Amino acid sequence: MTISMYQSLVPVAIHNLKNLSAILKKGEEFAKAKKIDETVLINSRLACDMFPLTRQVQIACDSAKAGTARLAQIEIPSFEDNETTFAQLQERITKTINFLQSIKPEQIDGKEDLKISYHQRNKDHNFIGQPYLLNYVLPNIYFHITAAYAILRHNGVEIGKKDFLGN
Amino acid sequence: MTISMYQSLVPVAIHNLKNLSAILKKGEEFAKAKKIDETVLINSRLACDMFPLTRQVQIACDSAKAGTARLAQIEIPSFEDNETTFAQLQERITKTINFLQSIKPEQIDGKEDLKISYHQRNKDHNFIGQPYLLNYVLPNIYFHITAAYAILRHNGVEIGKKDFLGN
Repeated sequence: MTISMYQSLVPVAIHNLKNLSAILKKGEEFAKAKKIDETVLINSRLACDMFPLTRQVQIACDSAKAGTARLAQIEIPSFEDNETTFAQLQERITKTINFLQSIKPEQIDGKEDLKISYHQRNKDHNFIGQPYLLNYVLPNIYFHITAAYAILRHNGVEIGKKDFLGN
Repeated sequence: MTISMYQSLVPVAIHNLKNLSAILKKGEEFAKAKKIDETVLINSRLACDMFPLTRQVQIACDSAKAGTARLAQIEIPSFEDNETTFAQLQERITKTINFLQSIKPEQIDGKEDLKISYHQRNKDHNFIGQPYLLNYVLPNIYFHITAAYAILRHNGVEIGKKDFLGN
């Protein structure tokens, strides 16, 4: 086994999105057990000017799919940001995992020096493959999954670091 | 440039610990500006059965130093868990970064298949180098740094994802 760009990203993102899915499942069960409208949890935030749970899940998925597609030099699959239920968030995660699973190692491996340039939110972004992966894509995935975890944890859902790390 | 075990861990951990240090600095300044005893922030939690800020910072540091030392097959530097001020947390981060900076690429590179076994908290832990790095060490570092970020963010400290990602 040798570490590679693909190994560092695609199986890692799939693993963490599956953990996020399991965490959200516990959130959904918590809402049902407590007879709480699920939109209360879905719209919950840690600070009033911080993104709610839905948006954290959307961006976690988007970080994984955009990062992978840009390194693979293929079009980024576009998903509408319209989820309002746990079931819809699960669908988004599944669609993201399906896309990640369609990527072959040779599409990502060897892209350490790839120049990546794009325009987003009125800004030019310029990256090089390896730092893009290590200092942008992976931290973004972990940041938004941990934020989703923290929102549910703060609201009383019984989850622990084991759920975040998975098997 | 080719991705390697060292590149995926040591510079990444140093970069993220520096970001954590900058985030804590903003927390300290916030406490001063609001005339809040810094121990209020230091002991703040997102849930009453979740670790407070201090412990999140301690474990972020410990995940980085233990993960690196185990892959380098050297003794893990031991730090006492006795920080009660922002200044002391900064010292712990500095000591951790100093240790990480003492590690040479050849001490970590090529350790993909290394068998790692240790006993901790009444449990045997058995890992293989690459999954240990990708599925245990890195997620732990990101999890605890994001948790520290989220505690400060929840308490009103003006930080954003840019502070988490750094330059």
